[in-house]
Amino acid sequence: MDIEKVNSMGFGEFVDVFGNVIERCPLIAAAVWSKRPFSGLGDLEKHFFAFIDGLPLSGQEGVLRCHPELAGRQPQCGRLSAESQREQSAAGLQNLGAAERLRFTELTAQYRTRFGFPFVLAVRLSDPAAAPRELARRLRCPPAQELRTALGEVKKICHLRLADLLGEQP
Amino acid sequence: MDIEKVNSMGFGEFVDVFGNVIERCPLIAAAVWSKRPFSGLGDLEKHFFAFIDGLPLSGQEGVLRCHPELAGRQPQCGRLSAESQREQSAAGLQNLGAAERLRFTELTAQYRTRFGFPFVLAVRLSDPAAAPRELARRLRCPPAQELRTALGEVKKICHLRLADLLGEQP
Repeated sequence: MDIEKVNSMGFGEFVDVFGNVIERCPLIAAAVWSKRPFSGLGDLEKHFFAFIDGLPLSGQEGVLRCHPELAGRQPQCGRLSAESQREQSAAGLQNLGAAERLRFTELTAQYRTRFGFPFVLAVRLSDPAAAPRELARRLRCPPAQELRTALGEVKKICHLRLADLLGEQP
Repeated sequence: MDIEKVNSMGFGEFVDVFGNVIERCPLIAAAVWSKRPFSGLGDLEKHFFAFIDGLPLSGQEGVLRCHPELAGRQPQCGRLSAESQREQSAAGLQNLGAAERLRFTELTAQYRTRFGFPFVLAVRLSDPAAAPRELARRLRCPPAQELRTALGEVKKICHLRLADLLGEQP
């Protein structure tokens, strides 16, 4: 899909196509449509990022809270979005052994309690061995720093999903 | 469900329960969770409304764009949320005759083109005869005024859905 095609879309089609580039936040795609026309992938994603950066603290936390748990309750209950399913599957997180999964689940629960949002990681840029280490490291970060880190992961995921949709190299 | 129950919810449960009180905007419920504890229905809805009021113009338009067309393409294609399905069904909009439906669909298309968002109406507070009249009237309003009117309808729908969930009289 080229950018002329994107710029020709009505808001209904635009939200259908881009509504999940920020996980479960079609509101953001629906807002970004106001900023058309877009000159390319970089310009399009710039508006997604600017919207997130302009949200109040509660809204930025809200974006994170719309993400699924990594290898957590939601994947096992089949409630992942198609995009998350593919990404987590490619990262091999769903193949963790029983003991590793238990440990990972314990740490994600600690993370959730400490920060008030789930652990978000752009797993396509990671590997199954790195995710538990990264979780343990980020669990010790100060809350304000960790919020910035987590939103950075949201933006990496957004970039990868937009690149997929536009058929471009990330 | 009483307010103590609401205040005891983790963000996952809270978003599961309240994620659609603003149609297809779980982000807003996820943000409102930051404002707990809530003293009651009025306090809870105040935070939903304040979040919408604090959004930039594109975000307010985005909230509206997450709503389905009334008696439009989406209802016929079975893509309505359960809440919208019940509300539109109760209002009798899905029983419009063929000629009435055609006329209504033409006017909603004009509305969409004029304002850049779909016609939103709290149909539970309306009746099937009033909706087409209200659409024709609002189609002639200045855009800034119509944005305020439409967001007012979003808030009425939110109030009704919250009252349902808390088992209170609207």
